[in-house]
Amino acid sequence: MAESRSGKPNVLFLLPPGWDALSKALFGHDAFNSFLHGKDHYAPAQIDYFVGFRPPHGFLKTLPRLKAIFSLGAGVDGFLRDPEFPRHLPVVRFVDETLQREMAQYVTMHILIVHRGQRGFDAGQRDSAWRQKMLSRPTRDVRVGILGMGDIGAVTAERLLMFDFQVLGWSRSRKDVPGVKSYAGPQELGAFLGQCDFMVCMLPLTPETEGILNAKLLSQLPQGAWLMNVGRGGHGNEPDILAALDSGQLGGAILDVFQTEPLPPDSPFWTHPKVTVTPHIAGITDPRNASAFVVDCVTRAESGAPFKNLVDLGRGY
Amino acid sequence: MAESRSGKPNVLFLLPPGWDALSKALFGHDAFNSFLHGKDHYAPAQIDYFVGFRPPHGFLKTLPRLKAIFSLGAGVDGFLRDPEFPRHLPVVRFVDETLQREMAQYVTMHILIVHRGQRGFDAGQRDSAWRQKMLSRPTRDVRVGILGMGDIGAVTAERLLMFDFQVLGWSRSRKDVPGVKSYAGPQELGAFLGQCDFMVCMLPLTPETEGILNAKLLSQLPQGAWLMNVGRGGHGNEPDILAALDSGQLGGAILDVFQTEPLPPDSPFWTHPKVTVTPHIAGITDPRNASAFVVDCVTRAESGAPFKNLVDLGRGY
Repeated sequence: MAESRSGKPNVLFLLPPGWDALSKALFGHDAFNSFLHGKDHYAPAQIDYFVGFRPPHGFLKTLPRLKAIFSLGAGVDGFLRDPEFPRHLPVVRFVDETLQREMAQYVTMHILIVHRGQRGFDAGQRDSAWRQKMLSRPTRDVRVGILGMGDIGAVTAERLLMFDFQVLGWSRSRKDVPGVKSYAGPQELGAFLGQCDFMVCMLPLTPETEGILNAKLLSQLPQGAWLMNVGRGGHGNEPDILAALDSGQLGGAILDVFQTEPLPPDSPFWTHPKVTVTPHIAGITDPRNASAFVVDCVTRAESGAPFKNLVDLGRGY
Repeated sequence: MAESRSGKPNVLFLLPPGWDALSKALFGHDAFNSFLHGKDHYAPAQIDYFVGFRPPHGFLKTLPRLKAIFSLGAGVDGFLRDPEFPRHLPVVRFVDETLQREMAQYVTMHILIVHRGQRGFDAGQRDSAWRQKMLSRPTRDVRVGILGMGDIGAVTAERLLMFDFQVLGWSRSRKDVPGVKSYAGPQELGAFLGQCDFMVCMLPLTPETEGILNAKLLSQLPQGAWLMNVGRGGHGNEPDILAALDSGQLGGAILDVFQTEPLPPDSPFWTHPKVTVTPHIAGITDPRNASAFVVDCVTRAESGAPFKNLVDLGRGY
């Protein structure tokens, strides 16, 4: 049980279940007093900083002395959908280079699995059958569109370009990523979608992007395009995605995030022949990096230095 | 049926079965007379150049006027194992940048599939089970060794490095590939092997490398290492590879090439739980690029310009 010592700020951690064993050793630090929610006794009125992924609605307003909020995820939708979220406080999101690079691994790997026909070779192996097949298209003719071209999108684009894919990106404001054609704003969304043989959703989840992967958007992709969602489950209109798969509008889908997680055992995605399901593992925050992030945030806050990666609450990211 | 017109060289093509439909349109050219073995009538005594993958033993010596041999594959073992091969002739191998880049896709994709635990997520999907799992090791701690660090190895290394893997290479002579630690010659093979979490065989097949993937070599890898063979089936001692898989010395194997191809239906590799079998598709020569290669070779030969990628018959590559 941690004690509140005077002179040091008090930091409250609300960590995901898998982190329990790690957390005390990782998140203790000389510069502040650490309290683990659910383990340590603490006085809500004495908490200066909050660290976590997605606190229960109404939780943060019970911390009256709170000075800043540090999100362990790159997306802060888990905070902002709390109707009682203290919107006057600075929110810092964790921009983790390791996580960005892991997301790029995931996206590139799954596009290569489709492009190279690896699932077909797997089926051949199950049948003990030697079925040679050339690439259906040269790599340079395959267009990958990144919906939500931000930091992670830029890292991903760099790898896809190295493998000779064409890459285009869509974002709210125009981006300058070498080798990537940038489309910006609602008026250019249609032109972007029409060129995506693969479309990878990397958007932040905001009121504007919630449910964006719906029938209207999917119908603007070339017929037989592939959808990958590594953003948030909230981006997907799941019945619309299933309908587009079944009509042939989508050639397939690679889904890492879902409206309800864990994905319920009776979800049709699990058994759909055109769908790859992974359990929200495209990018996993590394607790060791998160620990360094928290130390940096608290140090900056206490010294009055500006935060890095401060969230614009109006935009939602 | 092609006719031999005077003044132009006569080029004989012996093409793999899948190329039949393409070949006439692709391999005809104003600068020479094309003859397709098995389709066109031709006079063996009038053939100037031979183009193919692996002619039957004794075939080439039936072409008395032959001036040069152009191999459609990067490896020329299919020629050199002919005991009656005309060793006085220049042999040019096809170094195809597209093929190199496709090989790099294959290697990177399969290493990512293992590193990211994708087969486990596939199994979870078959069970409709949400089984999150972090990476067993950070990417930067995973060492990939390329046995046979040549042109293709260098392209592959560049991509693996971009994904944060450590890369080391072994070759007969020392190589200078940025970011890759080079090991050279038999005396440094053991030091190389001891550091390979993944070992990728990209060697040319020569008398020195035939059967090199045997119990002695495999025993020098770290326990649980993964073997990938994208070289030639002749590199593998298949009983030794199976024994190493079953003893746990190998954590798994990704095999694209086999002693006998197509891999016979009763091969234990097909059903081995630790093995991924693909039907020799890691790098497939693109007939369009091959066509340009042949034109370049004939033009150089006729004008007396030096060949690119002339094979050193003593080395075998």
